[in-house]
Amino acid sequence: MQMEKLSPAELRALYRQAAHTGPTAGVARGFVQANMMIVPREYAFEFLLFCQRNPKPCPLVEVLEPGQFEPSCAAGADLRSDIPGYRIYEQGSLVKEVSDISSYWRDDLVSFLLGCSFSFESALMEAGIRLRHVDQQRNVAMYKTNIPCTPAGRFQGNMVVSMRPIKSSEIASAVEISGRFPQVHGAPVHIGHPQAIGIQDLAKPDFGDAVEIMADELPVFWACGVTPQYIAELSRIPFCITHAPGKMFVTDLRM
Amino acid sequence: MQMEKLSPAELRALYRQAAHTGPTAGVARGFVQANMMIVPREYAFEFLLFCQRNPKPCPLVEVLEPGQFEPSCAAGADLRSDIPGYRIYEQGSLVKEVSDISSYWRDDLVSFLLGCSFSFESALMEAGIRLRHVDQQRNVAMYKTNIPCTPAGRFQGNMVVSMRPIKSSEIASAVEISGRFPQVHGAPVHIGHPQAIGIQDLAKPDFGDAVEIMADELPVFWACGVTPQYIAELSRIPFCITHAPGKMFVTDLRM
Repeated sequence: MQMEKLSPAELRALYRQAAHTGPTAGVARGFVQANMMIVPREYAFEFLLFCQRNPKPCPLVEVLEPGQFEPSCAAGADLRSDIPGYRIYEQGSLVKEVSDISSYWRDDLVSFLLGCSFSFESALMEAGIRLRHVDQQRNVAMYKTNIPCTPAGRFQGNMVVSMRPIKSSEIASAVEISGRFPQVHGAPVHIGHPQAIGIQDLAKPDFGDAVEIMADELPVFWACGVTPQYIAELSRIPFCITHAPGKMFVTDLRM
Repeated sequence: MQMEKLSPAELRALYRQAAHTGPTAGVARGFVQANMMIVPREYAFEFLLFCQRNPKPCPLVEVLEPGQFEPSCAAGADLRSDIPGYRIYEQGSLVKEVSDISSYWRDDLVSFLLGCSFSFESALMEAGIRLRHVDQQRNVAMYKTNIPCTPAGRFQGNMVVSMRPIKSSEIASAVEISGRFPQVHGAPVHIGHPQAIGIQDLAKPDFGDAVEIMADELPVFWACGVTPQYIAELSRIPFCITHAPGKMFVTDLRM
């Protein structure tokens, strides 16, 4: 099947039937894909406050009312089934990975959709900036840092960043272009000197795949959408659900 | 006393002693002033969600943790006493206007600070755009409209706008300049044709003072920070506290 040709609604229908459970990189080009985080109503204020205080790692696309699962950014969608994979966490520990969360659904669950870097990566590539992890068909390299997020209630911890090697001559353009997308992490949080933000070894990312850095490049670090999930784990809230890594919710919103 | 010369901290100390209870227009020029809204923790998620869904009328400056009253935008301040006047609402009705809310304080109260139009008005005036209500030392004219806000939980209703007459030759500049301040309502929501947004008579504002519109001017409408208070009243939540009209919280943030 030519996944690339399908509309967001056609893709979601496919994921709903669990006919496809792979990652969503490269599908429905031109449409916004979103990270998802579901927490009980009891934690919703604190999590929303955390996102409001940390807009770079947690750019909100949409927050649903408690118990609702059809977002306004995707008519007819069902957040409980239309993502290729989900992760269930209890007390901060991953307990299960599933392709449908209908049996876990409760009326007090609040769903958050957060911007994902696929949008600004398209803009960088259109400007002629090569992205090594895309060229090599790997997942982007992600690292835990020592950059503290602003805490909110029980949610606290450090930022996770994604790293892309960029040619020195193109770093300024990469900053300007990604800065135009504050709804998907915006401009980088750090350029060069990984040790300064607590990263000891670029060859050993905490999430995703390592890529080589060439002599004419510097590592450029962007706030990463994995941050809210990592913070939720650290904060050991009793229950939450996230999308599985690389398996995003495909919205009807155009980039 | 020359109020204009005092720093934000000096002003807040004065308000704290209730040595001055007048409006804050024109004081601490160059510093951000904020609308305030306090709701019980039970309503905090819905109100935060309302702000997130309606950023033009509800631009968040800061949200405090439940029970806290010292905002990070004003070191040493106490939100319970450092505003010249407060209004107490029960079930959507104004029950009292006071100059100190310490006796009403509860550990479950969540304080929201929201951007106020004083910031973009300074920028307009610096660009040579005259504002009639400032020239005439009146309060800006505000109107209820038929523009629906995006509801969130129990919070729903229409937007309140402020109106400033602007010369036709300066409207484009006024849009560009105010558009640079998304943290204080941003660009106008409507230009000309008051009937189209449900305003029958510009001479009869719902809040503030009417001003004349000259032959070479059009009425220009901006989303107004009175909206969240109006919505909270409409929504008849059991308890909330706001600043009194025109009596803002003076922060240490520079514009």
